[in-house]
Amino acid sequence: MNFTILHESRSTNARVGRVETPHGGFDTPAFMPVGTSAAVKGVTVEQLRAVGARILLANAYHLMLRPGHELVEQLGGLHAFMGWDGPILTDSGGYQVYSLARMSRIDDDGVTFRSFVDGSTWHLSPERAMEVQNALGADIIMALDDCPPARETAETGPRRRDAHERTLRWLERCRASHRRPDEQALFGIVQGGTDLLLRRASVEAVCNVELPGYAIGGVAVGESIEAIRRVVDFTASRMPAGKPRYLMGVGYESDLVAAVRAGVDMFDCVLPTRNGRNANAFTPAGRLHLRNARFREAAGVLDPGCDCPACAGGLSRAYLRHLFLAREMLGPVLVSVHNLRHYQRLMLDIQRAIREDSWSSLAEAWPATREPASPSCTTSTRQP
Amino acid sequence: MNFTILHESRSTNARVGRVETPHGGFDTPAFMPVGTSAAVKGVTVEQLRAVGARILLANAYHLMLRPGHELVEQLGGLHAFMGWDGPILTDSGGYQVYSLARMSRIDDDGVTFRSFVDGSTWHLSPERAMEVQNALGADIIMALDDCPPARETAETGPRRRDAHERTLRWLERCRASHRRPDEQALFGIVQGGTDLLLRRASVEAVCNVELPGYAIGGVAVGESIEAIRRVVDFTASRMPAGKPRYLMGVGYESDLVAAVRAGVDMFDCVLPTRNGRNANAFTPAGRLHLRNARFREAAGVLDPGCDCPACAGGLSRAYLRHLFLAREMLGPVLVSVHNLRHYQRLMLDIQRAIREDSWSSLAEAWPATREPASPSCTTSTRQP
Repeated sequence: MNFTILHESRSTNARVGRVETPHGGFDTPAFMPVGTSAAVKGVTVEQLRAVGARILLANAYHLMLRPGHELVEQLGGLHAFMGWDGPILTDSGGYQVYSLARMSRIDDDGVTFRSFVDGSTWHLSPERAMEVQNALGADIIMALDDCPPARETAETGPRRRDAHERTLRWLERCRASHRRPDEQALFGIVQGGTDLLLRRASVEAVCNVELPGYAIGGVAVGESIEAIRRVVDFTASRMPAGKPRYLMGVGYESDLVAAVRAGVDMFDCVLPTRNGRNANAFTPAGRLHLRNARFREAAGVLDPGCDCPACAGGLSRAYLRHLFLAREMLGPVLVSVHNLRHYQRLMLDIQRAIREDSWSSLAEAWPATREPASPSCTTSTRQP
Repeated sequence: MNFTILHESRSTNARVGRVETPHGGFDTPAFMPVGTSAAVKGVTVEQLRAVGARILLANAYHLMLRPGHELVEQLGGLHAFMGWDGPILTDSGGYQVYSLARMSRIDDDGVTFRSFVDGSTWHLSPERAMEVQNALGADIIMALDDCPPARETAETGPRRRDAHERTLRWLERCRASHRRPDEQALFGIVQGGTDLLLRRASVEAVCNVELPGYAIGGVAVGESIEAIRRVVDFTASRMPAGKPRYLMGVGYESDLVAAVRAGVDMFDCVLPTRNGRNANAFTPAGRLHLRNARFREAAGVLDPGCDCPACAGGLSRAYLRHLFLAREMLGPVLVSVHNLRHYQRLMLDIQRAIREDSWSSLAEAWPATREPASPSCTTSTRQP
């Protein structure tokens, strides 16, 4: 994997860059649609290409449990399996173990948990997380991290130092057991909760391990938006400038712009598709809840500036509302695609704002980027 | 509306034709995907165009109840509402009144029934059916027919003659109240159940009313496949040769080929999409139930001869099976699109078989067209 910085912002820590992987490249700052189980919910790979997505995220945790990483490998790896020949990043499962498992027990060896599929008992260690991700074959893979809820890492919490220290020990084991370092870039994950002293210790220690990229983890796990902003600002500025910085599981448009200004290069979030399935459409001025009666006769499209199939095809808000009321699957599909296009258009405009140092015109074109939206996004993809 | 016969089969009653409407034309024999509530379930209009669909069916009954034909009209009519600028046919609701209504009472004035949406009481008369379809603005609209279950029109059934006679009286009232005859072609519907004497009376009387096209109704409502074949053969041959003949709600591939040979030009059926949603994929050799464990490691595509996104994209049967087991919406989407493409490819090959009188090579390329498949299809689109 290769990362080149093409332009640095004059007034902020933001930068425009290019990541090259064995399956092609993508420009940064980049937003990755989430394809948890090797599918972005309801959206075909043709539609993903058309909205401008260049890299997808999938979850090793989900794929290990179903259909099994061995099967994916046998069928040619994740790219062939899901029919996406561009870059893919897999998350390790550290986050999912906490957000999904009905029961989990953690010790230094790893995590023991029950499968959300059938309740069977599974074990995930750093070595196992690498084995799974080596089998899946994504271009970027994530170290197994210990990612506890915010309340457990707060200043009075019981696991204040544990998560950071364990994440660091596991990172070394991940690196040592990674079998395909020439094809798959391993990213380390900074932990430390909302405690900036712990964050400093974590970012210094994690980034001291020579790796192709680093991520900020343990955010959007229950803390306030202000706390997220503080942690991201603090952490991003302490990560190596020459490597891609990836903020995991964030977020709304205002969260993205704030993080980009802090120097973050990569994002993933389920918001565009999850909101799309729930009849929530993103527009530059804010979100529309399409079930609302005020859209009953609304003849306009979701966003006149959007070129997604629904907006370019002239589909009215009233029609999309009708699809949701009639429980037509096409509603979730069309609004998910629209929302994904919204995010990709935002990323293009963010890249332009960096190049032209035109942050005020960005905020003018995208009023939704100004105000913090709450609650923030998480990558958690709870089963249906 | 204009219908031109381009080629007549030498050995059968089949013909290749072309229908021109105010929204463009389509070749016959034609298969119409079913977009009951102004949406083909899970499939975008871009995908419909790409699979080769040139005319869609929607249900006036459903649209009257939700979102209301007045709203659709206010938003520019059905074409604008659903973003499809090609030909559309709307069914009148005669069939749905019987298949969907929790309670319905029929008399000569029309049908009183309860809405499947909210249980409210509605009344549908021939005049009302025209008013609704005039508002929706489809290119082809259907007369309101009295379409009872097969058991009620069997030789010993209580409504042996009623349905036929009432359908005929209603047809005259439909024609008299049709407000847009220059833009919307009204088709009459032949009834008569499985009784060929009644069918003869119905086809003669209905086709004696000068209309741009005629349909065979009251089939696939519970009778045997043999009975359907007998009725279709008998009826089609007695319909005017110069007008399009439309067989409503049928069916499997073998049903289509048999009906085409009998002289039928147009078809609609929910099978491609309903089966697609239920993990049933059509192939020339027969249907695959993708949940079956034998597809767990199946690396092949659904149909190597298919050019749908799933097959052309190399997506394995194992991947599609995974999507259904993981309850991923993308499974129903991809298999619905595949099945629709399967039907459109079949129609193209049927047209070729007519032109070249090559029925045996059609049967060779599409073994599934040889055997009657049961149970047969109906247009019933039960909620949700």
